Amino acid sequence: MAADSVSVNSSADFWHVMQTTRAFRRFKPEPVDDVLLARCLEAATWAPSGGNQQPWRFIVLRSPATRAAVAVGAQRALAGITEVYKIERPAADDSSKRARMARDLYALHEGAADVPAAILFCVRPLPLMDPLSVGSNIYPAMQNFLLAARASGLGTLVTGWYANAGPELRAVANIPDGWELAGLVVAGWPEGQFGPVRRKPVSEVACLDTWSTALTTPD
Amino acid sequence: MAADSVSVNSSADFWHVMQTTRAFRRFKPEPVDDVLLARCLEAATWAPSGGNQQPWRFIVLRSPATRAAVAVGAQRALAGITEVYKIERPAADDSSKRARMARDLYALHEGAADVPAAILFCVRPLPLMDPLSVGSNIYPAMQNFLLAARASGLGTLVTGWYANAGPELRAVANIPDGWELAGLVVAGWPEGQFGPVRRKPVSEVACLDTWSTALTTPD
Repeated sequence: MAADSVSVNSSADFWHVMQTTRAFRRFKPEPVDDVLLARCLEAATWAPSGGNQQPWRFIVLRSPATRAAVAVGAQRALAGITEVYKIERPAADDSSKRARMARDLYALHEGAADVPAAILFCVRPLPLMDPLSVGSNIYPAMQNFLLAARASGLGTLVTGWYANAGPELRAVANIPDGWELAGLVVAGWPEGQFGPVRRKPVSEVACLDTWSTALTTPD
Repeated sequence: MAADSVSVNSSADFWHVMQTTRAFRRFKPEPVDDVLLARCLEAATWAPSGGNQQPWRFIVLRSPATRAAVAVGAQRALAGITEVYKIERPAADDSSKRARMARDLYALHEGAADVPAAILFCVRPLPLMDPLSVGSNIYPAMQNFLLAARASGLGTLVTGWYANAGPELRAVANIPDGWELAGLVVAGWPEGQFGPVRRKPVSEVACLDTWSTALTTPD
C-alpha cells in the first residue's frame, strides 16, 4: 500500500466520498496490496441482494494468464470504441485536448495487462429472475467496492472489457456454468485528484408521480 | 423530516454507514420530506454510468393512483411469496418467531399503499447492451440512494413489487417506451435500530485468479 497516497486522498466522510467517486483512467505504477483490496471487497459484500442470497463472486485477476485475457478484452473494446467514435492514434506532437484524451484511451487499453489491480464481478442468476433484475444482485456490490476504494484513496474505472473476452475470461478463471460475468473494475493509486462528479441536476432526473412532473423542492 | 430520528440514527462516517445499511420492513408513520428525498436522489446521480450518459429516472410515487399500482404489485408479490415459501397468515395468539416474521410480511405488503415513501427506479437501455449489463447503469444509483438514505437515518427496502405491476405502474406514471422499470425502493423512518449487516466472510466470495483459489490476506 502506498501510505502517502492514503494519507493524501483517503476520506471517511460519507457525503464527500460519494460525491467524489469519479472514474480514473491513469494510475501510478505502485501495486495495491491484498489487505486493502480485501477490505474494499468486504464492503462489496455489505450490499443487498434478493433474500440476502449473496449470489456473487469477486475475482482478483493478477496472474499473467488472467491478465492476458483482460488484455484481449481491452484490445477488442478499443477496436470497437475507435471505430464507433472515429478516433485515431494521435500524432506525437499533437497536444490538443482531443489528442490527449485519445492518447489516454490508447494507453489505458494497451496497458490493460499491467493495470495495478483488476477485479472481475460475477453473479449467479436465480430462477425466474429477468436478466435486468439479475443486476440488482451484483451492481450494488460493485458500487460499494468503488466507494470503498475511493474512501481508501484508490481510483477505479468500470470497464466493459469482460464483455469482449467472455470465453477467454471464463476459461482462464474457471468460471462455472450458471454464473455470469457482470463487470470488470480496474483500480490503482490515481494520477490526478479526486473531485466532484459532473452530473445532471437532480431536478432533471427525479419526478413526482408521473414522468413529466419534476420533483421540486424549496431552495 | 423527523428531526429526532435524524439526530439519533444519522451518520456521516463512511464505513459505519456502509456496514449498517440493512433492510427495514417496518417504518414509523411520519412522512419523509421531499428535501431529504431529493438529497438522497442527488446522491443517486453521483453513481457511474456508461459514458456518463446517466440514463436514469427516479419517480417518487405519492399520489393515490400511483400508490394503488404499488399496492397491486405488492399484493401479487405477497401471493407469490406465501405460495413459494408455504407461509400462512399466523393466528393472532401465535407469538413464535416464524409467526412474527409472517405477520411483518403481511403487514408490509398489505400496507404497501401507505409506506412513507416509494421510489421507482427506471433505466433506458442503450443500443447493443446485453440485458444484464443494462443494470450497471441503474443499480449503482439505487445503491447510492440506499446508502444516502441510511446516512440520513432513513430505513429502506428494495422490493420486487414493480415486476408484479409493470403495466399498471407504466400506465399511471406515464413511463415512455424505451425505458425499463428496474427497482422499487420503500423508505421511511425505521422501526428498530441500524446494525451491522449479516454476510458471508469475504474469504468465501473473493478469489485470486481462479474460482477455486480464495483471496487470502494476513490476519
